[in-house]
Amino acid sequence: MNSSLRIRSMPVSAVRKLAPYATAAKQAGATVFHLNIGDPDVKTPEAMLAVLRNWDRNPIGYAPSPGEPAFLRALESYYHGLGFGFLTESDIVATVGGSEAIIMALFSVCEPGDEVLVFEPFYSNYASLAAMADVRFVAVPTTLQTGFHLPERTQIEQRITGRTKAILFCTPGNPTGTVFTRTEMEMLVTIAKERNLFLISDEVYREYIFTGAPKHTSILHFMESLPDRTIMLDSLSKRYSLCGARLGVFVSRNPELVQGAVKIAQSRLSGGLIDQLVGAALTEVPQSFIAEVQREYESRRDILYTGLTAIPGVTMTRPEGAFYSMVGLPVPDAEQFCIWLLEKYRSEGNATVMLAPGTGFYLTPGKGKSEVRIAYVLNTSDLKTCITMLADALEQYPERIR
Amino acid sequence: MNSSLRIRSMPVSAVRKLAPYATAAKQAGATVFHLNIGDPDVKTPEAMLAVLRNWDRNPIGYAPSPGEPAFLRALESYYHGLGFGFLTESDIVATVGGSEAIIMALFSVCEPGDEVLVFEPFYSNYASLAAMADVRFVAVPTTLQTGFHLPERTQIEQRITGRTKAILFCTPGNPTGTVFTRTEMEMLVTIAKERNLFLISDEVYREYIFTGAPKHTSILHFMESLPDRTIMLDSLSKRYSLCGARLGVFVSRNPELVQGAVKIAQSRLSGGLIDQLVGAALTEVPQSFIAEVQREYESRRDILYTGLTAIPGVTMTRPEGAFYSMVGLPVPDAEQFCIWLLEKYRSEGNATVMLAPGTGFYLTPGKGKSEVRIAYVLNTSDLKTCITMLADALEQYPERIR
Repeated sequence: MNSSLRIRSMPVSAVRKLAPYATAAKQAGATVFHLNIGDPDVKTPEAMLAVLRNWDRNPIGYAPSPGEPAFLRALESYYHGLGFGFLTESDIVATVGGSEAIIMALFSVCEPGDEVLVFEPFYSNYASLAAMADVRFVAVPTTLQTGFHLPERTQIEQRITGRTKAILFCTPGNPTGTVFTRTEMEMLVTIAKERNLFLISDEVYREYIFTGAPKHTSILHFMESLPDRTIMLDSLSKRYSLCGARLGVFVSRNPELVQGAVKIAQSRLSGGLIDQLVGAALTEVPQSFIAEVQREYESRRDILYTGLTAIPGVTMTRPEGAFYSMVGLPVPDAEQFCIWLLEKYRSEGNATVMLAPGTGFYLTPGKGKSEVRIAYVLNTSDLKTCITMLADALEQYPERIR
Repeated sequence: MNSSLRIRSMPVSAVRKLAPYATAAKQAGATVFHLNIGDPDVKTPEAMLAVLRNWDRNPIGYAPSPGEPAFLRALESYYHGLGFGFLTESDIVATVGGSEAIIMALFSVCEPGDEVLVFEPFYSNYASLAAMADVRFVAVPTTLQTGFHLPERTQIEQRITGRTKAILFCTPGNPTGTVFTRTEMEMLVTIAKERNLFLISDEVYREYIFTGAPKHTSILHFMESLPDRTIMLDSLSKRYSLCGARLGVFVSRNPELVQGAVKIAQSRLSGGLIDQLVGAALTEVPQSFIAEVQREYESRRDILYTGLTAIPGVTMTRPEGAFYSMVGLPVPDAEQFCIWLLEKYRSEGNATVMLAPGTGFYLTPGKGKSEVRIAYVLNTSDLKTCITMLADALEQYPERIR
């Protein structure tokens, strides 16, 4: 018997799709450098690891559905530290990773069949989560040529229909590395006000903003003036190198939406208690940790940008934030190239590199076919090796467009 | 602006619904004994806590979407130890708690609007998760009088329609404490074969089977002969007192269903790495741990059964397994009584007891109105205190039916 049609038609994660090829390569003895997934190599802060090493809770019981109190308090204090003193614990729901926060947002604001505007290219798992929520995404195009910044307001407004409920966006952007300017954020707020839409702002990468980028403008800057229609999604995964601890955040000043998120939280009883107590130690992480990580990613950004743009036929814009870039390659089908890298290409002593094919980040068929998403989450030395390999691989690739 | 209708119409967790009253009682200085939620007081095995204390992975990166290899291997070995040597790692998906396993099962076998048969009363969160999956539950009644065992086959078959896709059940049962006999399981298998339905068997409480109960018959006993249509759901929460570690399991021999579960797993990238490595230590937990826990729960079961049935007007059947019982109370509205316990009743030095109102475990309006679910997850001394308090509270309760 078959699985349901909705599962079969659910997009496969662009980031995870080629995992079986990587597994096969590793089983055959190859070293695979992972630039396909945003799993940072930066060490988790000691204050957080200490929570595990000093563990004394026994038994490991449920946390309250909306979040373990110590974690909620730590989050409140973190947002206050960013200047958003109006937020209280009751505006915050701790989620099982950022993914659950997205699920909560989509379920809370949309009926089945409703539409949500997203800027293409977008984080590919948004589409899988939207499929679960039976929400239809409508793509607003942005392009590599304009650094994936927002298009004219009319480009957005012409896609609003009677079923449009929200605009979902990510700044700094995954997969684009783009940081929306204050003017861009103001435009979205204006549209939301005039057209009665929710704004869902994914700010998982807020700490990763580099030289030359606009200052980060959070939706929280507008939350007091637009409490009913704004949701901020967050995660500790990237900021504290805690991807394997599932720690996301749903923030809203609209009590009905918070209640919706809590209902979903109650349906799974509890998030992870251990993870949340690890996360609660965020107040003990020194500011210098974030600053160092930021510097580290900026130097990676620079190495990636300089290295890749020196390869003939490769196109990219200088990332402003996060640790991703959508990169155009001189190949007819980037997915085939990614598979070829894993199956055929070996260099540097049986090593290869794994990238995420671009099409998974677009809704419009055909778009992103020559693009890949690169997550520059490896140290500068490994990153340089990867760039050298990519240049070499493109030289060797039989289908290369010259 | 309002949250979506589907969220507003989503049932509130029967187990979590009265949490605000409990919080208020605690804030006012009261001690609340929690018999409302299956959060055991039994200690987590040392071998599992040792994983935390000896933690050395850094950074805490993503686990593979279908599960951390060490955890999947441990699960495989656990099921082999139970006599199901045919299972392999590729039949197993590690989930974020049993709740996610239920979500995966419902999404994998149902289109929106499809129907699933459930035996009433059932675990209340099934209904919330079904609402998320847009699945319609059809209730097959079971009664306290027959110990919540399955009704005649015709009672089940007459509820099958063209949209029925599956039968979802829990054995040993939450909230009933009922263990289905081999004959009952065979009846379900026969119906599934003849009517082309999936069987989704929730076996989270498999280790809790008491004297006088039928031997546990798992759906795994039938999985080889009915590979396409059987799914087993499991969780480590109760077995190892790991409720706060979110560790569930989805098992099927139908590769399409496993692939469906993996797609959902990919949409959230990773389960908890820390939790899964804690779970992987299950192979180091001595058999004596489970045996001791079983004895402990059996003595609690006996205390509860003897104590409650001695209270005039209280009705219950002797639980066969799990650590729950649906108990009939001599009150017109058990939810009001539960609220009264939290708001008004105090005894034993400012203490009270929290129960889960029965209606949340039924789909049929009005059913379970005089029932509560009791989770006997407290030590025998506390449990005796709770029974004394309940007898006393019922004496004092103004609405008591005499």
